[in-house]
Amino acid sequence: MQPPMQPRMSVQPPDAPHHEPDFEALRERAFNLRWATVAPDVIPLTAADPDLPVAREVTEAIADYIARPHLSYGPACGLPPFREAVARHFAREKSAPGVDAARVIATNSAASAITLVARHLLTAGDEVVVQDPVDFLVAESARRAGAVIRRWEPTPGGSGGGPGAAGGSRRRFTAAGLRALLASPEGARVRLVSVCHPHNPLGSLWSAAEVAEIAEVVAAHGAALLSDEVWSDVLLDGAGFASFAGQVRPRLAPWVVYGLSKGYGLAGLRIGAVVAPDADAAAGFAQAQGFEHTIEGVSTLSQVAATAALGHAGAWRSEFLAHCTRQRDLAIDRLAALPGVRIDDAPEATFVLFCNIEGTGLSEDVLAERIERIARVKVVPGSPRWFGPGAAGHLRLSLATTHTVLEEALDRIVRAWPAIIAPGADTATMAP
Amino acid sequence: MQPPMQPRMSVQPPDAPHHEPDFEALRERAFNLRWATVAPDVIPLTAADPDLPVAREVTEAIADYIARPHLSYGPACGLPPFREAVARHFAREKSAPGVDAARVIATNSAASAITLVARHLLTAGDEVVVQDPVDFLVAESARRAGAVIRRWEPTPGGSGGGPGAAGGSRRRFTAAGLRALLASPEGARVRLVSVCHPHNPLGSLWSAAEVAEIAEVVAAHGAALLSDEVWSDVLLDGAGFASFAGQVRPRLAPWVVYGLSKGYGLAGLRIGAVVAPDADAAAGFAQAQGFEHTIEGVSTLSQVAATAALGHAGAWRSEFLAHCTRQRDLAIDRLAALPGVRIDDAPEATFVLFCNIEGTGLSEDVLAERIERIARVKVVPGSPRWFGPGAAGHLRLSLATTHTVLEEALDRIVRAWPAIIAPGADTATMAP
Repeated sequence: MQPPMQPRMSVQPPDAPHHEPDFEALRERAFNLRWATVAPDVIPLTAADPDLPVAREVTEAIADYIARPHLSYGPACGLPPFREAVARHFAREKSAPGVDAARVIATNSAASAITLVARHLLTAGDEVVVQDPVDFLVAESARRAGAVIRRWEPTPGGSGGGPGAAGGSRRRFTAAGLRALLASPEGARVRLVSVCHPHNPLGSLWSAAEVAEIAEVVAAHGAALLSDEVWSDVLLDGAGFASFAGQVRPRLAPWVVYGLSKGYGLAGLRIGAVVAPDADAAAGFAQAQGFEHTIEGVSTLSQVAATAALGHAGAWRSEFLAHCTRQRDLAIDRLAALPGVRIDDAPEATFVLFCNIEGTGLSEDVLAERIERIARVKVVPGSPRWFGPGAAGHLRLSLATTHTVLEEALDRIVRAWPAIIAPGADTATMAP
Repeated sequence: MQPPMQPRMSVQPPDAPHHEPDFEALRERAFNLRWATVAPDVIPLTAADPDLPVAREVTEAIADYIARPHLSYGPACGLPPFREAVARHFAREKSAPGVDAARVIATNSAASAITLVARHLLTAGDEVVVQDPVDFLVAESARRAGAVIRRWEPTPGGSGGGPGAAGGSRRRFTAAGLRALLASPEGARVRLVSVCHPHNPLGSLWSAAEVAEIAEVVAAHGAALLSDEVWSDVLLDGAGFASFAGQVRPRLAPWVVYGLSKGYGLAGLRIGAVVAPDADAAAGFAQAQGFEHTIEGVSTLSQVAATAALGHAGAWRSEFLAHCTRQRDLAIDRLAALPGVRIDDAPEATFVLFCNIEGTGLSEDVLAERIERIARVKVVPGSPRWFGPGAAGHLRLSLATTHTVLEEALDRIVRAWPAIIAPGADTATMAP
């Protein structure tokens, strides 16, 4: 048997930049519509999972942990250092100084956390506000809890969008829009308001003032609040972030879901957290949802990796965010020039880009199929089943790959565009 | 920053026996009533989680994986090599040649798997057979699904028990007992029969003939079957194992739950699996329980570790099982000699020992508290809330520590026993 450090040295020498992806590894490992699932000549800009290697501090922490080869039961609600690291991260970086470790419960991914919180807060027949469009998980979780969904639509904007916007006008979910919905007959019996903050797929980011205003609207209605903040580490243009976990006010119980899949590339480790409104609520959640009975819980090794990311990978994340900002600008620059494409929602956060393709006269499903077949790039159609009815007429592209790969993907799309939108394109393919 | 391999080399040199626990690590890491949660002078023989280091093949596989620092989304139902390794393990070692990878779904621990299968098979008001005594998780999961529990009691034996038995007579869950329960008014509406195989806490192991007979009884009743086989890797005296996953017969849908916490010491990684009755049932389970939506799923790193354990840690497990067999003999030898203690259930499998303490005239809770306070050893009382009403009057000891530690713990109990069972012991402590 080989000494265990040899393969690590050869693949990841200490002087390597640790930035270049190992595409061979991605072809083996990156599932969920990505490299391991597409044809060899197709570039996936699909699931929101970076192609970039994780921070060296993460793999070092894992190696250090297994150097003492004990993988015993962890504590039900998470390792104390993990819970403390999440609390510190929210307190210092997310304008939520009141978050302490007792409010944090480690969960087996943010997706799992959303479902558990929805199950915890809802009973069959309850009404829930869900943004439209938005990532499908909250609606899916509400449906599993037997709840009735009330859709909150964004307000059309007129300012021409935020940084990097090109054409179109940014839509925005506003406190006024929420207030109007809750005041309508549709909203009267709403028990829970859910938000995705920052917003996937629109890439919009609420300011601290907007967060406070929305919290006030929810509190005034007497509803609970579920804020999906899995994207809150991916802020572009150096933006800051105000978590709903920092909204301490009468009659408001904010439940925040967090995860490390987007900001630190740890999707495979399934590590996330619930930040409960207070310590008692956290304990009650853990008891009711089976954490105390080992029914729920998270791999300790995933928690060790996440703790290292939060504590020591700040430099990695700074570089990553600067890279994501440049990728956004590159993608908008190339795509906004295409006939039939409009960028209404230039991302202020996230590394996904939601493109309006209504001008092509083609549905999102047809267009996505043609882009894959003709340009050999896979994107996510804005199908109602993934993002709600309001997503129709859009495509979502994940941009968290290298500059070279994104440029190649965009080149392919731009070159193939006339063929893609041509009337006869359903049978066309590119010359090899 | 230090080169990452240095701490690994110093802690785990290639020529070290890799068998001696690192108790300092256990004091930091072993929760769930174990080293990290007890007073410094207390020995925990509590949660069923080995003190022994995991196999070197496991930590090497983790190190190899992170040498390529990509931790992308895995596939919804588990990594193909993990699913194949579990299928091969059942086919080759558990008399279930018909199990293939399509029947296997990776789960975030066996405990999670039990709850998911119970949720999948049961609707509120359904009736479920649960052994009494048995580990609490099936009853807890059935209760969460709103089901009604029908208790199946073991049949008193007369043979004087199996290997290592000392005094008392082994109780056994029998097909005849199950048939009688299902034929009674209590059993008429039973939709699901659950079994723990091998049995925690009794340590009993059904033969292939018994498994077939029980499967037949369940099939004749038209109920589904849930077999918790998390202990199926821990077989004493070189025994073999017949899984219910191998019971292919008309009208029987066996759902098997498996995990690597007991046989390979991977409790912290939360890695288990469901083996469904067939590929379609597995796919339906994965869809209904949210695997396809990333709501459920398992850390890829945990799957990599488990795949290495199943594929390459056979020698480690052989040594571990021989050790567990010796530990059982040592514990029975010492404990059966104590006044008021009877070993009715000498384990044929598992590394737990269930001791009858009715002869002391003390309740299991009082006795466990006194053993911890006076002898400085922590054991698990046979409380109805952990093991069902039939567990009263018993203590459960986990024996998967070193010979030295177990001997010390037993010495302490034996020395302190007169004080422990003395009438005034509620205020006594040992001299320091």
